[in-house]
Amino acid sequence: MYSLAIHGGAGTLARHQFTPEKEAAYHAALKEALEAGDSILKNGGQSIDAVEACIRSLEDCILFNAGRGAVFTHDKTHELDASIMEGKFLKAGAVAGVTGIANPIKLARSIMDNSEHVLLCGRGAEAFALEQGFRIENPDYFYSDLRYNQLMQVINESSAHLDHSVQLPPDEKKFGTVGAVACDVHGNLAAGTSTGGMTNKRWGRAGDSPIIGAGTYANNATCAISCTGHGEFFIRAVVAYDISCLIEYAGMTLEQACQKVVNDKLVKFGGEGGLIAIDTQGNICLPFNSEGMYRAWKSNESDTFTAIF
Amino acid sequence: MYSLAIHGGAGTLARHQFTPEKEAAYHAALKEALEAGDSILKNGGQSIDAVEACIRSLEDCILFNAGRGAVFTHDKTHELDASIMEGKFLKAGAVAGVTGIANPIKLARSIMDNSEHVLLCGRGAEAFALEQGFRIENPDYFYSDLRYNQLMQVINESSAHLDHSVQLPPDEKKFGTVGAVACDVHGNLAAGTSTGGMTNKRWGRAGDSPIIGAGTYANNATCAISCTGHGEFFIRAVVAYDISCLIEYAGMTLEQACQKVVNDKLVKFGGEGGLIAIDTQGNICLPFNSEGMYRAWKSNESDTFTAIF
Repeated sequence: MYSLAIHGGAGTLARHQFTPEKEAAYHAALKEALEAGDSILKNGGQSIDAVEACIRSLEDCILFNAGRGAVFTHDKTHELDASIMEGKFLKAGAVAGVTGIANPIKLARSIMDNSEHVLLCGRGAEAFALEQGFRIENPDYFYSDLRYNQLMQVINESSAHLDHSVQLPPDEKKFGTVGAVACDVHGNLAAGTSTGGMTNKRWGRAGDSPIIGAGTYANNATCAISCTGHGEFFIRAVVAYDISCLIEYAGMTLEQACQKVVNDKLVKFGGEGGLIAIDTQGNICLPFNSEGMYRAWKSNESDTFTAIF
Repeated sequence: MYSLAIHGGAGTLARHQFTPEKEAAYHAALKEALEAGDSILKNGGQSIDAVEACIRSLEDCILFNAGRGAVFTHDKTHELDASIMEGKFLKAGAVAGVTGIANPIKLARSIMDNSEHVLLCGRGAEAFALEQGFRIENPDYFYSDLRYNQLMQVINESSAHLDHSVQLPPDEKKFGTVGAVACDVHGNLAAGTSTGGMTNKRWGRAGDSPIIGAGTYANNATCAISCTGHGEFFIRAVVAYDISCLIEYAGMTLEQACQKVVNDKLVKFGGEGGLIAIDTQGNICLPFNSEGMYRAWKSNESDTFTAIF
């Protein structure tokens, strides 16, 4: 038995602003990313490899706010965050505020596998990437008219904005992040998350995506989690590990823990967003308290499903 | 009722290597830092102000690996991490990898109070500090022969080393960090942590000190926690929030949760270090699984205690 789920961000994705073509493009991109992981899992591969493959696909797609499609910072750069964790030995790697890395999830994986550290930041992380043979991309690798226009739209406003669609009024919140969770046939869980953060972000701001326990967590004894939402709230609520603890210490099911955190605790706390969750019993939960969340999932026993609203 | 505890790092602090003068200097510095917070709490002040005052005192003291006494990185700079959290509204601020800031805990507090963010990193965080009127110190503010000699001792070795005393063999581990937890007369908890990280650290490495949920956590419903130890293990184990969850979800007392995490889970996991913990019932726990931990504590009903072993 194996299972797999991915997300491409959550937020107020008003249905009427999606053209049929745009909606189809998102569904196709989600399906392609899911299949990158599915092809590993169905051949007996590792969940950590499936998670990395899914996220790399999403990072390479300009539709999502991660990797190539990352939003612009206030200084017209791209600062990327990512983290990955495996559930057997609780090993983890994370990177915050790096520029020029096409696939930050691959760098997080390299930190996990090839260093004694968990979290590397900024230029130091880029130096590590160079030592590991990563290529540093030019800024134009990350350029798109879509993202640049989004920056121009908000750059004169005082507060940073959380991602996505340029058609939406700036007071509508979008949480552009990508993530994946997987359970492989060996019963091992893994989770990963990657993001470009907030359009117009300043001051080296990092959200929950690079934080083990907040944006990403995996533990074979409980669950694997990847979050997307208003990162500051997700950090303060330690969202990913909270779900694990509700399962381990309070005896909740995955479904109960997800509902408690996303649709009760986070709603009361003011934390908009969602997450994807999986356990070793084949359960998949994809809760969100926003209008929509780009997501896709499948198991060896099911078809592939993709959804936005 | 109020109570207060601080730490100045944990590790293998072999007793025979302490001269009476050196031991007296640590006790005096701990007492001075504790009194900085106590003078606030005994006059009805806020726990968050007491935590900041204690940590600023420890950051200003060259004996501890934080602020002025921070260890050198591989590149002969100082990269400082800190975080602070209050338990009533679960507000938090954190900073990772900043240079030139005399009191990183003050900057973390400013991020909590004056921005909509929680975590700011590197040069971006320094830009925020400048906007907030912080002074950027020259590198020589952080220079000491002690720390420079420590760097020289390990710079030719392959792995980064965790702090402290230059007299010790490099294979003995020291976890230089400072922290404080407090409960004020209003029943509000707060916690904070600050560090210079590992001697000879590279690649923008951050440990658990700037991570809410790992190195620092505060929640009036459960406890306030500040950790010191091998940061990578503390991140992967989400130590500070784990103690909170064991109290909230598993019904443990503060003492039971601290023992479970520090002397059972972390020992099995290979995570050396300790933490300071406090709750609103006046309980204070200071567990560590290393040979020693610089610490001090008091309540309105007790004298001031300081201890190393």
